[in-house]
Amino acid sequence: MAVRVGVVGAGNIGQDHIRRLAERLRGVAVVAIADADAARAEAVARRVPGARVCATGQEVIGREEVDAVVVTTAGAAHEQFVLSAIGAGKPVFCEKPLATTAAACQRIIEAEVANGRRLVQVGFMRRFDAGYRALKRAIEDGQVGRPLVVHCAHRNASVPATFTSEMIINDSAVHEIDISRWLLDEEIAAVQVLTPRRSSQAGPELQDPQVVILQTAAGAFVIDELFVNCGYGYDIRCEVVGESGTVALGEAGDLILHKDGRRSGGVPADWRARFARAYDRELQEWVDAVAAGGATGPTAWDGYAATAVADAGLEALKTGQRTAVRLDERPRFYGPASRSGTAG
Amino acid sequence: MAVRVGVVGAGNIGQDHIRRLAERLRGVAVVAIADADAARAEAVARRVPGARVCATGQEVIGREEVDAVVVTTAGAAHEQFVLSAIGAGKPVFCEKPLATTAAACQRIIEAEVANGRRLVQVGFMRRFDAGYRALKRAIEDGQVGRPLVVHCAHRNASVPATFTSEMIINDSAVHEIDISRWLLDEEIAAVQVLTPRRSSQAGPELQDPQVVILQTAAGAFVIDELFVNCGYGYDIRCEVVGESGTVALGEAGDLILHKDGRRSGGVPADWRARFARAYDRELQEWVDAVAAGGATGPTAWDGYAATAVADAGLEALKTGQRTAVRLDERPRFYGPASRSGTAG
Amino acid sequence: MAVRVGVVGAGNIGQDHIRRLAERLRGVAVVAIADADAARAEAVARRVPGARVCATGQEVIGREEVDAVVVTTAGAAHEQFVLSAIGAGKPVFCEKPLATTAAACQRIIEAEVANGRRLVQVGFMRRFDAGYRALKRAIEDGQVGRPLVVHCAHRNASVPATFTSEMIINDSAVHEIDISRWLLDEEIAAVQVLTPRRSSQAGPELQDPQVVILQTAAGAFVIDELFVNCGYGYDIRCEVVGESGTVALGEAGDLILHKDGRRSGGVPADWRARFARAYDRELQEWVDAVAAGGATGPTAWDGYAATAVADAGLEALKTGQRTAVRLDERPRFYGPASRSGTAG
Amino acid sequence: MAVRVGVVGAGNIGQDHIRRLAERLRGVAVVAIADADAARAEAVARRVPGARVCATGQEVIGREEVDAVVVTTAGAAHEQFVLSAIGAGKPVFCEKPLATTAAACQRIIEAEVANGRRLVQVGFMRRFDAGYRALKRAIEDGQVGRPLVVHCAHRNASVPATFTSEMIINDSAVHEIDISRWLLDEEIAAVQVLTPRRSSQAGPELQDPQVVILQTAAGAFVIDELFVNCGYGYDIRCEVVGESGTVALGEAGDLILHKDGRRSGGVPADWRARFARAYDRELQEWVDAVAAGGATGPTAWDGYAATAVADAGLEALKTGQRTAVRLDERPRFYGPASRSGTAG
Repeated sequence: MAVRVGVVGAGNIGQDHIRRLAERLRGVAVVAIADADAARAEAVARRVPGARVCATGQEVIGREEVDAVVVTTAGAAHEQFVLSAIGAGKPVFCEKPLATTAAACQRIIEAEVANGRRLVQVGFMRRFDAGYRALKRAIEDGQVGRPLVVHCAHRNASVPATFTSEMIINDSAVHEIDISRWLLDEEIAAVQVLTPRRSSQAGPELQDPQVVILQTAAGAFVIDELFVNCGYGYDIRCEVVGESGTVALGEAGDLILHKDGRRSGGVPADWRARFARAYDRELQEWVDAVAAGGATGPTAWDGYAATAVADAGLEALKTGQRTAVRLDERPRFYGPASRSGTAG
Repeated sequence: MAVRVGVVGAGNIGQDHIRRLAERLRGVAVVAIADADAARAEAVARRVPGARVCATGQEVIGREEVDAVVVTTAGAAHEQFVLSAIGAGKPVFCEKPLATTAAACQRIIEAEVANGRRLVQVGFMRRFDAGYRALKRAIEDGQVGRPLVVHCAHRNASVPATFTSEMIINDSAVHEIDISRWLLDEEIAAVQVLTPRRSSQAGPELQDPQVVILQTAAGAFVIDELFVNCGYGYDIRCEVVGESGTVALGEAGDLILHKDGRRSGGVPADWRARFARAYDRELQEWVDAVAAGGATGPTAWDGYAATAVADAGLEALKTGQRTAVRLDERPRFYGPASRSGTAG
Repeated sequence: MAVRVGVVGAGNIGQDHIRRLAERLRGVAVVAIADADAARAEAVARRVPGARVCATGQEVIGREEVDAVVVTTAGAAHEQFVLSAIGAGKPVFCEKPLATTAAACQRIIEAEVANGRRLVQVGFMRRFDAGYRALKRAIEDGQVGRPLVVHCAHRNASVPATFTSEMIINDSAVHEIDISRWLLDEEIAAVQVLTPRRSSQAGPELQDPQVVILQTAAGAFVIDELFVNCGYGYDIRCEVVGESGTVALGEAGDLILHKDGRRSGGVPADWRARFARAYDRELQEWVDAVAAGGATGPTAWDGYAATAVADAGLEALKTGQRTAVRLDERPRFYGPASRSGTAG
Repeated sequence: MAVRVGVVGAGNIGQDHIRRLAERLRGVAVVAIADADAARAEAVARRVPGARVCATGQEVIGREEVDAVVVTTAGAAHEQFVLSAIGAGKPVFCEKPLATTAAACQRIIEAEVANGRRLVQVGFMRRFDAGYRALKRAIEDGQVGRPLVVHCAHRNASVPATFTSEMIINDSAVHEIDISRWLLDEEIAAVQVLTPRRSSQAGPELQDPQVVILQTAAGAFVIDELFVNCGYGYDIRCEVVGESGTVALGEAGDLILHKDGRRSGGVPADWRARFARAYDRELQEWVDAVAAGGATGPTAWDGYAATAVADAGLEALKTGQRTAVRLDERPRFYGPASRSGTAG
């Protein structure tokens, strides 16, 4: 009765998810794996009892014993496999981004709406983090009143030399883009990007740090500092300033050490350590929803909206100007529209 | 290939564990349940597909399809069922305490040693808590040097009227007794109990708070404040003072709230909220060890040692005197003895 | 041998400073007081042994026994009295702002430079706060590398109904304007003001909160959230993000309280509680410098620069655009120019 | 109109106090200095305008222009000079301990009572620390209900080789002895000393750490960890556990630094850094009380009580037993007796 999952894409994050599905989560089995690099697919599958290797992602999706699909290829291939899964009527979990352009996201949304059943979940795993969930609960319970300003920081110790200024928007800020929409239950109306003097630890081409400013439809501002060469560790902050108080994620360190004249706590080394449980919970809940014949978590619309905002962000990074976000009307399929406002 | 578990005792903690085993953990199924109250066993089993009700715990243990046993009866019945499980050669997970007297623990140890294979795990779930594990790692890595003093606090918001002074030793302090042995890798040599003026929130018969002082074989002191009517929440503290620094569990609150003139974080309401993940991990690791044909976690010896220390604690509570702990020689079956010292 | 001070302006802050000078600080005496409201001057002077009342501020400044002058009138009158003090060759401590327009500040600077001796100190008392001083020391010691982004928050529980949107720039943000210049040792090159949706706790005319974005000459950004109806207390934050780490003011609460399910620390009720010691130290150091025939602390140039930035901020608030700061060349009289950069 | 102070004893702490009185505090002048080492007195006085050197402490006390006396000699000489000051009818501020034996303290009390006017203040400067004052206020306001247990830690980075086990009681624990009496407004009835295994960082003769357990008259317990070679800095902790919550001193670090994988705050290097302001306030308030013809702060009775408890502590250290504190009846001269209880 376990959900039989086929995985398309067996790179880093793909292997991570395969391990989770095959070894840590209950009620699920990995039965098919494909990768552009056949040898890699072979090597990965060898460690997963009961998993067969397929020549292509399409084959994975098409196999009868595959109940549901996980897409963890490079972003450019996401659209193709997600559309195939929709075409096959199979639930599909797609790592973020849903697709690399807003237009591609739109095509996915159209296919899913035409299909008539919600099949797509996007991998915005922060929505499954215990801290962010408590934050959302605090907002919904009215503990700080209506949110007015949100301060975020998203810092990595360092990034590979191949990391570009645009990836800071597309791969880093996209997390705060989604989490802001989710926490505030509103769409983003405009984006601006501040470009501070660059860290000498960053490559010569890399604009690092950046400050991305999101304005929501109702006029709240999200100020998001992105700094991918901060040097000291992985540090995720979020403080929501409301009309009657503020509420923030706590510091991550579990242990307090007194030594050598300092009182200190740990900073996680990277996102794996910080969000390991969120990844587990994300997939387990997806598995459970699939097993129950339903759907849950971030939708294709969420994936599209994040991409549309990131697109505006990239333009803002280029022009230095505040850039309005262009968002199509939300299909009723994805439930009631978020609260909307007058800004933008 | 899942481990088929039989559960003896379907009260509060039993139902908790059944839910965990049947709904949250992978690689395991609950196939048999017994309880002194047959109707309760019936009601609980009805929610667990594939679980049958047995008339007695002995029947649960004896059924062929039961691979392993979980004992969650009242403490007085632990000995009987753990011995039966050993007799049947089946792995048994026994909630703490292993048994209510040191003599009973000894009988279990003898049976297990005679059987020749490690079968018993005691439910000291703090060893599975991420915080305590990080603490142990920090000590073993020498981050604070040799431990000299350990400060613990164990506070509950309140307890039922039936809670007795002795239960503060047997049911509360037993956690710090075990965790101290584990963190310091030493046996406890002596116990003293301080009895401060009583809280007016405690019942007239209840000595609350108490300060239990444990002295290890090598002369370290553990100072454990037990306060089961502290009023404000569930609060577990542990700071290890070593020769070159101190290391402590961090505060539990995940969110920081600024409101009404205060900056505050949450205190968990009770042990469920604080240690939910530790319970999960404890059982999952047990299941996995069982599936692998091995054993892990706290042993019968650990259960016995904790009981022996608690016995000395009860005497110390009665006499007001420092009381030496009487501990038999440790069977080699349970691995190398802890580091020993000269105190006592 | 005490410094004999004359005070012009005996309103709230004037009385505060008189009490400090007369009762808390050593080496100083208040000998003359004037106020536009003669009865108020009279009442205040009655509590200060040895202080005479003068009919006008000019009389205070002119009296032979007055060694030095403190100006605590309304801002509009600052220029006049500071110029008079310079004319009389007497050291003058002027509450911020130095004057209400950049042009007026310039006239003061010209007078002081023409006079040839530094006489003016502006009341930017945060430079005397232990926390900010430690912050500056940490930056100068290179603990976090070159600063790239600074996050500030400046929150008041509430403000009177007379508080205007412009005052948030002129009276609140001016503190972060000065402290940023001082911490980073750079001038501000441009200002932008974000206007989030308004708090319903603010009056109908008040844009509250505001986010003021300062760009320094070398391209660092200061992001300053101003929120004067935050409801929960007085909360001042400052985190400097550098190339190799970040350093921030600690939380203000001295005591940690565990009660009613929360772990909490205090938030000061207002700026008096938070900065009481800074005010003391500011005046004591001024007194001491005066007694020694020297000068110290924020200069007239600092007062001018802050006003010039605030002017740009007001324009930015009105236009919604990034606004460049117009700053005259810095007289060599005020020491070496700050490090400059290429942004702007 | 300044209070003219004579200082007897110009060693480390004496020079500290002279600097405070002569340079930092208002309303006071140092006019006479004596020291057993005449050259040292000469050298110190040379830096204090208006201060003369006297051949003996008695001469300091006897000089007509000396209004009040500060005694900062070695402890053994305290009794003699305090008695002389009382004999001369002059207020005397005596560094702790008041005297080195309870009997000597008693002689001082008798002399002061016979004299009929309160003249003696003992240098327990923690009572002037902002943190402890807030703690006392929180207790008195009933924020945590009736105190039941107090946890203290008193840690120094290291001590000179001359430091003895007895000094841990007499010089270190004496601070918590006094502060406990003051916070709880009760006398100490009994003392016990735990002697954990010794730190290898301590000298071979030094019992370090020690855990001193004080039981108050009403049955509260104070658990005080003394560790004078803790290695990492100067760390003072105090948490009061009451019937409805706990309240504790906050951590000392002002700045929060994120760097190299750690989030850390400072630990003061020593007691000077931690309690500098308390020393200032202590002396300023004494000066002010003297100028007003009154008295304030810790009394001779407080000095005696602390010594009596320390004596019991030394016996407890020697015997390993709980030792009752012998305390004479409190003269009505020192105000109403503390709340008393039935323990002991």
